[in-house]
Amino acid sequence: MMAEEQKPGTALADPFGIEVQPQSDPETFAHISNYIQERGTASPIYAFLFTPGLQLIHASRGLVIARLILGPAHLNSSGSLHGSVSATIVDWAGGLAIAAWDCRSTTGVSVDINISYLNSARQGEIEIEGKVDKIGGSLAFTTVGIWKVGEAGKRGDAVALGRHTKFVRTVQKTSEQ
Amino acid sequence: MMAEEQKPGTALADPFGIEVQPQSDPETFAHISNYIQERGTASPIYAFLFTPGLQLIHASRGLVIARLILGPAHLNSSGSLHGSVSATIVDWAGGLAIAAWDCRSTTGVSVDINISYLNSARQGEIEIEGKVDKIGGSLAFTTVGIWKVGEAGKRGDAVALGRHTKFVRTVQKTSEQ
Amino acid sequence: MMAEEQKPGTALADPFGIEVQPQSDPETFAHISNYIQERGTASPIYAFLFTPGLQLIHASRGLVIARLILGPAHLNSSGSLHGSVSATIVDWAGGLAIAAWDCRSTTGVSVDINISYLNSARQGEIEIEGKVDKIGGSLAFTTVGIWKVGEAGKRGDAVALGRHTKFVRTVQKTSEQ
Amino acid sequence: MMAEEQKPGTALADPFGIEVQPQSDPETFAHISNYIQERGTASPIYAFLFTPGLQLIHASRGLVIARLILGPAHLNSSGSLHGSVSATIVDWAGGLAIAAWDCRSTTGVSVDINISYLNSARQGEIEIEGKVDKIGGSLAFTTVGIWKVGEAGKRGDAVALGRHTKFVRTVQKTSEQ
Repeated sequence: MMAEEQKPGTALADPFGIEVQPQSDPETFAHISNYIQERGTASPIYAFLFTPGLQLIHASRGLVIARLILGPAHLNSSGSLHGSVSATIVDWAGGLAIAAWDCRSTTGVSVDINISYLNSARQGEIEIEGKVDKIGGSLAFTTVGIWKVGEAGKRGDAVALGRHTKFVRTVQKTSEQ
Repeated sequence: MMAEEQKPGTALADPFGIEVQPQSDPETFAHISNYIQERGTASPIYAFLFTPGLQLIHASRGLVIARLILGPAHLNSSGSLHGSVSATIVDWAGGLAIAAWDCRSTTGVSVDINISYLNSARQGEIEIEGKVDKIGGSLAFTTVGIWKVGEAGKRGDAVALGRHTKFVRTVQKTSEQ
Repeated sequence: MMAEEQKPGTALADPFGIEVQPQSDPETFAHISNYIQERGTASPIYAFLFTPGLQLIHASRGLVIARLILGPAHLNSSGSLHGSVSATIVDWAGGLAIAAWDCRSTTGVSVDINISYLNSARQGEIEIEGKVDKIGGSLAFTTVGIWKVGEAGKRGDAVALGRHTKFVRTVQKTSEQ
Repeated sequence: MMAEEQKPGTALADPFGIEVQPQSDPETFAHISNYIQERGTASPIYAFLFTPGLQLIHASRGLVIARLILGPAHLNSSGSLHGSVSATIVDWAGGLAIAAWDCRSTTGVSVDINISYLNSARQGEIEIEGKVDKIGGSLAFTTVGIWKVGEAGKRGDAVALGRHTKFVRTVQKTSEQ
């Protein structure tokens, strides 16, 4: 179950040598679809935020992309995407990216999360990407981005960018970090 | 309304020259109580997480301490405090600390948030502290901690530690950062 | 001099709609070359780390890529890239990316920096990328990555990833944040 | 050598129930003094920044406090403490705090570091504190602060605050994280 360290199945990091993966991997897509449903049911905060309006649009090795139609649950008193919701998305999508690495069913416990808030998102739809930067035997590193969905359905301005480090060693997971 | 830069009304930072503030400031306490209620009503995610089980126990200049009885909304599928809830607490309590600085009614927009996850909290009560580290004309820096409530009601092991930087310049707040 | 908010001149963020910029902008390249030399002279820590072995390989709007041959100054007692050097690179390259946005000569003051350490780099050459995620009137958000230079001179495993938020409003820069 | 999880020997976290440790532990103080000297010699960047002007003023279980007289090596082109130097201090002092936990001789590898920049420090002396928040079998969490040394030698305004998470499992340390 524990993956050997390999290069992530995406090439976001290399602007000049990009190996794009325009198609999802069917097995990974099915695994992530199930994973979202199960987690959405099991965790109240995920159920609260991700049950309606979420659409998985891509899943391949270490890469998950979804879109979310913003509704009242996601907004603050000014009508913009709530900063806590963006933070929850960084938590959520980092875990999904790890699950998409090798269709594993557990994604470890959080070690460190950070989020920068670049632009407000007022209404409509956002695009969420979770991406594995590295998975080792003990630690997994992920990057998560949230963008507006702009004209003609293209990815628009960045709303928030974050990273999520998780402890993925399975044996001692519950007793210690 | 915009405060001059002053030293925060707490002394968490200095282990050997601590000026403890064991009593709340009544005006600040009343302001924060109202602030929590209004935000709890206006932001669905805050209403979801902070409406039941929350007790404000201290508010003074730049310092807010509250306790929260963990219920189903706060937990993950393993029955522990959900990492997204801890992140939301860092967002929420950083804003409260700013509101407690000078009883201001707006606390700006988030710039950067980070959270480290130290221990899981399985049930019972947690103690939350938000503290201003600095407020300037444009930026406010806060530290937030979450601890278990241990034996005899004392603060126990740290569950999560974070910092929350907000942009507090009022004039251009909505149009740019 | 202060830029209107525009989209960065790179497309690292969009895996499926990438607008690659394989060529440097000559004016930006010249500006960044000068900027590196001036900073390298003016700041002792930059002089210590970046004077020998550094090669600028790309500069365009909001994007800078450089390579650094690792020498004794960059290594820890185990012979690996020192974590403090990686942190310094995140500081340094975030500023360069801002300078590359519109050939500005000042890049503001740091607000928040974070770094995740993914892999050790033992010898040879690393590739450094600094990239603007957003520049507004007050704040600039940048992402920095460090990679090994792998076989055939291609970008290899990620060594460290970070983000650097700077306060770029020029008027009150020295007196307050 | 690997410590059981215990509460840190400091009480920075609890404003109302503080157990202050005004005296150093002699064994820990001697261990940290040696550790600083050895690391200062073995790592060029530490030698560059910490050799002159550094004074250890406190060491006890999981807590280290030092003072550093700022010299040219520490400053940027504006004559203020360089942001890269503050980041290096967060790296350095987090490791020292772990070494002070149980006089261990290795402090693991960095996982995540973050730094917020609150105030500039222009000249004179700064006070540095590194503090263990938790040490487990795999991960150690530390908080680091940098303050100006103010009037009458007291701790003054905060310059920078950060956290440093390290992977401290000894067995697989070199091969994987």
